[in-house]
Amino acid sequence: MNKLRGGGEKVFKRALFVGRFQPFHYGHLHAVRTILEEAEELVIVVGSAQMSHEPDNPFTAGERIEMIQRALDAAGVDRRRYMLIPIPDAPAHRVWVSQVESQTPKFDIVYTNQPLTRRLLMEAGYEVRGIRLHKRGQYEATEIRRRILAGEDWRVLVPEEVYRFLKEIDGEGRIRDLAKTDTVNNRRR
Amino acid sequence: MNKLRGGGEKVFKRALFVGRFQPFHYGHLHAVRTILEEAEELVIVVGSAQMSHEPDNPFTAGERIEMIQRALDAAGVDRRRYMLIPIPDAPAHRVWVSQVESQTPKFDIVYTNQPLTRRLLMEAGYEVRGIRLHKRGQYEATEIRRRILAGEDWRVLVPEEVYRFLKEIDGEGRIRDLAKTDTVNNRRR
Amino acid sequence: MNKLRGGGEKVFKRALFVGRFQPFHYGHLHAVRTILEEAEELVIVVGSAQMSHEPDNPFTAGERIEMIQRALDAAGVDRRRYMLIPIPDAPAHRVWVSQVESQTPKFDIVYTNQPLTRRLLMEAGYEVRGIRLHKRGQYEATEIRRRILAGEDWRVLVPEEVYRFLKEIDGEGRIRDLAKTDTVNNRRR
Amino acid sequence: MNKLRGGGEKVFKRALFVGRFQPFHYGHLHAVRTILEEAEELVIVVGSAQMSHEPDNPFTAGERIEMIQRALDAAGVDRRRYMLIPIPDAPAHRVWVSQVESQTPKFDIVYTNQPLTRRLLMEAGYEVRGIRLHKRGQYEATEIRRRILAGEDWRVLVPEEVYRFLKEIDGEGRIRDLAKTDTVNNRRR
Amino acid sequence: MNKLRGGGEKVFKRALFVGRFQPFHYGHLHAVRTILEEAEELVIVVGSAQMSHEPDNPFTAGERIEMIQRALDAAGVDRRRYMLIPIPDAPAHRVWVSQVESQTPKFDIVYTNQPLTRRLLMEAGYEVRGIRLHKRGQYEATEIRRRILAGEDWRVLVPEEVYRFLKEIDGEGRIRDLAKTDTVNNRRR
Amino acid sequence: MNKLRGGGEKVFKRALFVGRFQPFHYGHLHAVRTILEEAEELVIVVGSAQMSHEPDNPFTAGERIEMIQRALDAAGVDRRRYMLIPIPDAPAHRVWVSQVESQTPKFDIVYTNQPLTRRLLMEAGYEVRGIRLHKRGQYEATEIRRRILAGEDWRVLVPEEVYRFLKEIDGEGRIRDLAKTDTVNNRRR
Repeated sequence: MNKLRGGGEKVFKRALFVGRFQPFHYGHLHAVRTILEEAEELVIVVGSAQMSHEPDNPFTAGERIEMIQRALDAAGVDRRRYMLIPIPDAPAHRVWVSQVESQTPKFDIVYTNQPLTRRLLMEAGYEVRGIRLHKRGQYEATEIRRRILAGEDWRVLVPEEVYRFLKEIDGEGRIRDLAKTDTVNNRRR
Repeated sequence: MNKLRGGGEKVFKRALFVGRFQPFHYGHLHAVRTILEEAEELVIVVGSAQMSHEPDNPFTAGERIEMIQRALDAAGVDRRRYMLIPIPDAPAHRVWVSQVESQTPKFDIVYTNQPLTRRLLMEAGYEVRGIRLHKRGQYEATEIRRRILAGEDWRVLVPEEVYRFLKEIDGEGRIRDLAKTDTVNNRRR
Repeated sequence: MNKLRGGGEKVFKRALFVGRFQPFHYGHLHAVRTILEEAEELVIVVGSAQMSHEPDNPFTAGERIEMIQRALDAAGVDRRRYMLIPIPDAPAHRVWVSQVESQTPKFDIVYTNQPLTRRLLMEAGYEVRGIRLHKRGQYEATEIRRRILAGEDWRVLVPEEVYRFLKEIDGEGRIRDLAKTDTVNNRRR
Repeated sequence: MNKLRGGGEKVFKRALFVGRFQPFHYGHLHAVRTILEEAEELVIVVGSAQMSHEPDNPFTAGERIEMIQRALDAAGVDRRRYMLIPIPDAPAHRVWVSQVESQTPKFDIVYTNQPLTRRLLMEAGYEVRGIRLHKRGQYEATEIRRRILAGEDWRVLVPEEVYRFLKEIDGEGRIRDLAKTDTVNNRRR
Repeated sequence: MNKLRGGGEKVFKRALFVGRFQPFHYGHLHAVRTILEEAEELVIVVGSAQMSHEPDNPFTAGERIEMIQRALDAAGVDRRRYMLIPIPDAPAHRVWVSQVESQTPKFDIVYTNQPLTRRLLMEAGYEVRGIRLHKRGQYEATEIRRRILAGEDWRVLVPEEVYRFLKEIDGEGRIRDLAKTDTVNNRRR
Repeated sequence: MNKLRGGGEKVFKRALFVGRFQPFHYGHLHAVRTILEEAEELVIVVGSAQMSHEPDNPFTAGERIEMIQRALDAAGVDRRRYMLIPIPDAPAHRVWVSQVESQTPKFDIVYTNQPLTRRLLMEAGYEVRGIRLHKRGQYEATEIRRRILAGEDWRVLVPEEVYRFLKEIDGEGRIRDLAKTDTVNNRRR
């Protein structure tokens, strides 16, 4: 089974990586690779899983799972070393940690750069590490959504498989539609 | 039953018209009339039905149903050709469509100008049409609430029955109260 | 508008009639007629509106609304004198009354034979009346669902339009499927 | 402050006592006294707080809080040594503990005889103790509700103040109403 | 029991005071004292009880209950004259009042300066009074959280026990962490 | 990538297999193998994911995911050919399908023996197949939980890795605790 672990002795048995992946980009891919150097297995938590069709959360959890798996396949990241778990937001932040614990296999380290996630997990007693970012400011989901809206080039910021998947599901069209507002009825429903 | 159908052959059997109606105004009335030229029956979805007592959503679904029915009665729109169905927001946009489907009789066309509603229903396979607006910019719920707050004339923007109903329930007082903030405790509860 | 009121002076302005209508049967039809002798208008609350696809709650609120309207049309009950409002169960019984109040126009009388509904509305200060039942024991939704499962004749218990509607949507098939259990996996999901 | 602590050195600083108190009876009173011999302060968790108007959960959390405080006042239990906190059921058992933790001050011991409550709190690392029961089988909420329904004497099973409070709010009438079923419409709504 | 009532004849039997107490400060303490001059007993509703770990709602209801009780103990406010009840936000404003009623003992007066709370309770028929504020603008939770973030002195704005409690639970650290945003992943989860 | 697909041409691209897996047993393992003969990839939906610590639903979704993966690893089922997705129950059956669709990658076939799941997915237009069961009556989660409670041998009914995992987390103790009732307080909380 040593091969499954990606070679070498790992510091952690199972890591948790929490993100929204709206969409999955090169920064995320880099993070997955880095974590898999330190941990045998990785649980990728697709957070805010109930969210979709919002300007900041355009894609469903299922679409995000599909784009991540395609991107990791193409990047040669072995499917045997990670799993993808959708986790909806909790009705209260304080119970979010136990909601995560109840939906995932046991983990011994968490990677995140998000301050609230870090704080909640630290207060619950977990070891939490930041992720060294790669070309920060560029590889950001916010920047990608902005470029799509502005009609600028965003293809360079995401793995090719993510680009193709978003083309398949007309992700650009969806992001543009969600950004429109109608002044007569300026909220949905 | 032809008489119920308002005379003439209609293109659609049952249309859905989605709005929040906070409050119902002449633009909405015009839309109802236009849709009833094309469809035999109309389901008016009173959206965000759980919302009330908020600056942008001051009235309960029951109050909105009452004001719409009074306005349509006064305008001579036949009650036999429409029904009013309150639908609360869904916990996730992606399940909103099936929530609507489960609470309404079958429909074959949707009218809305709201981009998200249009996108969700189109992705679910429905035909969606926009509504040609009448004096857009003026007949808008946002503008009406703004005028009420500013103490400007808003009576001209809504059917007389809506004006009287809002007087009856002290709708102006409620909108003004909801706009106040208290700096010591600047959120409710 | 006197004609709309069905002739004669009415005791109440707007009555509420609460039921689940799984399915709508002759007992319900009789109740609607009786209430419309005493009240000018009727709000028919389609309760447990979120429920469907359960042995005791097979039909969606939308399907129930459609079957009720068809049955009342065929029975000559004027659409202008009632409206159909779906109301989901409340997270707590104690707040159910204010949920109903917020989703319906103002009412001054409630008709129900259900003890909890009666108690909740009475504790909230409403006048509540029972409904004199017609051939009780036979015109019951439970009996109808039992006959469907047993393959016995149930057509005589419901208005013809309800029978046809349930045929259209394969209501018998659904009720039979929902009654099956699979011992390997004896709960859904 | 020693006097507030009820005299003597206590083993625990703050105990949690979890119950539904439908209604509060002599067994509960005895438990409160016993716990206050071992702990300086007591948090009485009024569980299933959202429940009321059900045969097994007839009283609201507010009514339960009021009856408990009156009974403890009459029994001479010092208000300064306990607090009453309503806690609704959690959407999932696994997050119930963190919901309790988030709504109560820190506690160092839990008293309960309920197996699930004990298991959940033990799995979360808390020390949990059972309560030595006093005339078990008699001082039980189920037995009290049964006697009320049967018209038998139940006054001897509850503190006099609970009896009077339930008379005030017509608790017997409510329990009897909730036990009735109507065969035409045998579920509420 | 006259002593418990704090001496003198009171106008009201039981008052409700609604706040979020994020954190509890001298303005709140002053309000509690003022209300206890007019009412025999006080129910302090710790509102938005499900909220915590947000920039505007950093502390859990349990932490708020603990800090309020410590502050009132130190200020000599008798525990026998008030109780602390956490109440989560309601899914709809219109049902919030009945949610409060179901979780608290009966009350005959409400004190609040918050316009929405006042409006909802007034529409439900309660008498609602404002609180004369003491050094308004300074004793505000918003100002305290701002000073903590800015590293300015906030100790003077809260009772000493609140200051110490927040030091114990690293409240300053939590507020500062929650204010950070991470541009790569700028929402939690 | 043909190797990943397990050799041979498959009929379906991605199958969905819905179960609760309380616990995962030989019948489930047999089903997974059978489905992977017909489909390239498999999404195993761990249903009722929010449930745990109940007599019929003792294990959390995370524990179920962990036991399934260990059992499939030991059985030589390639991790690259399946993914495990926890899905909570929906507030209404009618929206469950769109909840599943939003949390999973696209699938073209569903395998289930459960009548409600089959009906809901068929009404939504999916092809649904039953699973030929292997030694039905014996390989059933209900039978396994019954044996654990009765102290009978259950090890033969589950893959060895499931047995070991349940020993590790004291699954037998949990099931036995959850089956106990306490007559003084016979519901949790």
